[in-house]
Amino acid sequence: MRNNSITGPKGFMAAGVKCGIKVSGKPDMALLVCPTGATAAAVFTTNKITSAAVEVSREHARSAKVYAVVVNSGCANACTGKLGLANARRMCAMTAAETGVRPGQVLVASTGVIGHQLPMAKVTEGITRAAAALSDSPRAGLAFAHAIMTTDTKCKRAYRQIMLSRKQVRIAGTVKGAGMIGPNMATTLLFVTTDVSISKPLLGKAFAEAVGSSLNRLTVDGHQSTNDTGVLLASGQAGNPRIASRSRDCERFSAALTELCTDLVRQMALDAEGATRMFKVVIKGAATQADAVKAARAIADYPLFKCAVHGGDPNWGRIICAVGSSGVALDPRRLSCKLDDLYVFRNGTPTDFDVKKAARIISQREHTITVDLGIGRAGDFYYGCDLSAGYVHINADYHT
Amino acid sequence: MRNNSITGPKGFMAAGVKCGIKVSGKPDMALLVCPTGATAAAVFTTNKITSAAVEVSREHARSAKVYAVVVNSGCANACTGKLGLANARRMCAMTAAETGVRPGQVLVASTGVIGHQLPMAKVTEGITRAAAALSDSPRAGLAFAHAIMTTDTKCKRAYRQIMLSRKQVRIAGTVKGAGMIGPNMATTLLFVTTDVSISKPLLGKAFAEAVGSSLNRLTVDGHQSTNDTGVLLASGQAGNPRIASRSRDCERFSAALTELCTDLVRQMALDAEGATRMFKVVIKGAATQADAVKAARAIADYPLFKCAVHGGDPNWGRIICAVGSSGVALDPRRLSCKLDDLYVFRNGTPTDFDVKKAARIISQREHTITVDLGIGRAGDFYYGCDLSAGYVHINADYHT
Repeated sequence: MRNNSITGPKGFMAAGVKCGIKVSGKPDMALLVCPTGATAAAVFTTNKITSAAVEVSREHARSAKVYAVVVNSGCANACTGKLGLANARRMCAMTAAETGVRPGQVLVASTGVIGHQLPMAKVTEGITRAAAALSDSPRAGLAFAHAIMTTDTKCKRAYRQIMLSRKQVRIAGTVKGAGMIGPNMATTLLFVTTDVSISKPLLGKAFAEAVGSSLNRLTVDGHQSTNDTGVLLASGQAGNPRIASRSRDCERFSAALTELCTDLVRQMALDAEGATRMFKVVIKGAATQADAVKAARAIADYPLFKCAVHGGDPNWGRIICAVGSSGVALDPRRLSCKLDDLYVFRNGTPTDFDVKKAARIISQREHTITVDLGIGRAGDFYYGCDLSAGYVHINADYHT
Repeated sequence: MRNNSITGPKGFMAAGVKCGIKVSGKPDMALLVCPTGATAAAVFTTNKITSAAVEVSREHARSAKVYAVVVNSGCANACTGKLGLANARRMCAMTAAETGVRPGQVLVASTGVIGHQLPMAKVTEGITRAAAALSDSPRAGLAFAHAIMTTDTKCKRAYRQIMLSRKQVRIAGTVKGAGMIGPNMATTLLFVTTDVSISKPLLGKAFAEAVGSSLNRLTVDGHQSTNDTGVLLASGQAGNPRIASRSRDCERFSAALTELCTDLVRQMALDAEGATRMFKVVIKGAATQADAVKAARAIADYPLFKCAVHGGDPNWGRIICAVGSSGVALDPRRLSCKLDDLYVFRNGTPTDFDVKKAARIISQREHTITVDLGIGRAGDFYYGCDLSAGYVHINADYHT
């Protein structure tokens, strides 16, 4: 059986265990190790309030080689002051001691409720047990994916294999959802492993591009968290000639990485808190790309439109309202809107469209809304999901 | 019995009737008339897509005297092209014919579903019947307030009496909620009558100020509609000496008008779609006022925080997350947050607060969140409400 978890690419071991941070008793400590050391790329939240883990990992990600990533769920360790920062450093030190490396070669990530201190006795036990459970088996990769979850109902994984200069290269990723997802050069918690041989700067560039057009184009509730962290580790064990800048191999690796991240984004949107449907908003004819992004995001974030999608109601007026409210340059007489291929509004006037057909389109598991602003040549896109009563129940009851 | 409806101030007649625009059969045509002509002030949506009614009323509001305002609910007449514009003009012309004035002296407002044409046969009948029902009785004022409602569960009214230079001056207002409410120098549909004697420029200034610190500081779902319109009519029949600029009477009138609008805003927040609670977000210590407004709005608009309020959960981490995500200048080490008078986070560190007390505060019908950004002297505020499953039900089912 092919191992399509994050231990699939050569050179990685993982583990996921329970240590009691989560009241539910579900897995809450995860460990990813590359014993020979990996070239690392990382992206972090641009929220001005960052968790202790983000502060520490930002520093450690500069290291030439990263050997391990330790992750806890159930406690964000954000807004926790000096003690929180010391605890994040302790997590790295404990992991380093277990794996025989330096603390500065270990990254740390946390997710969960903001404002609580980590229960360090449980964390210590968790790291010890995770280190003992490390394995390169598919089961270990899956255990890692489960241990980073919070309100996710499904674990999210993606896998790609490509041939680069006749050598097989593997890329595997896992991500956690499911709320507090708004974009801006960051994501939630994302971990990608690959055995490709590549330099640190090129890896960083490829990762930034992939995240930029996938996770940074998803909004569930419009705000990025204090803890968003994306890490890509490359073990270099695939045996491919080291990827050169602007080479065909570089392009193909970037494309596969973007495809993998987009796959994860679709899984996140469909498993967002309470979500039952996802959509892609495509903006055309914008004056500038910034306007295109702004308009796409305004639609994807608009609660009234998200509710209409949930109800399977082709209430396109809410799309136009969101675009107009976003402040982007537009010409009302040239504004058009399509649901998949069905025009509902064209050059400023409603079309005589088939309402039942429109309702069928918007009731699909995935559909695309295209809005032409009618004044320029720039375009961009955003992914979003419906807003259901489930979102409210999850977030009114997810008590501190 | 004192008449505290919009026909309370001297010189106004009103009516509200059913004409079949709404499928529910509820009242949907309203008429407000000042037979002697009123000095008018008006504010409109800054959405770049505006309803036909907004386009026409913007033009007519420049008239020295306004004699009538005609309002329909159940159809927004927005995104309806040239036919929609012609229909809005016809509504003014019909009202003018019924009241014996010029069409340019009549304002029009519409609210309801976007993208549908007005059923003009019904509208014609509605205007005729409303004109026949015009009266200065409290009942007529109440009928007007009911006929402008959409998803509101209660009609919203406020009334103030003040003495200006020994003359009694009356101000009365009514507003509709309840969703698609986001601010920006505009509101939903707001109608205010007064018998004060005042010049058009001073009236405009007082109205802009009152709306600026009340309706423009309320967010239900972050987007302003295509139809937002606020109208203030002054009949001048109170007998007060015409208010002079910067006079004590001017200040007192402005203060009473702001108080009346704030009263209406509280009613809107508490009757917002699905809402059960409201809150005020106060920002202090911001570098600029723009930052203060941005931070306050980011919190008031954040779905995760709105859900926490609904659940009565003092999850203050979501407040801090929203502030950090908003992009305003702040110092994490000097950041503080209070729920009413209870500090939950002080100078970047969680306090050892009483969780039950915090839960009681956030479970009240109204509470105040104060955030000190810790770097400057600017401040501002915003009103918001909780997000409940009711919001989703209303908006997933409010079909086109």
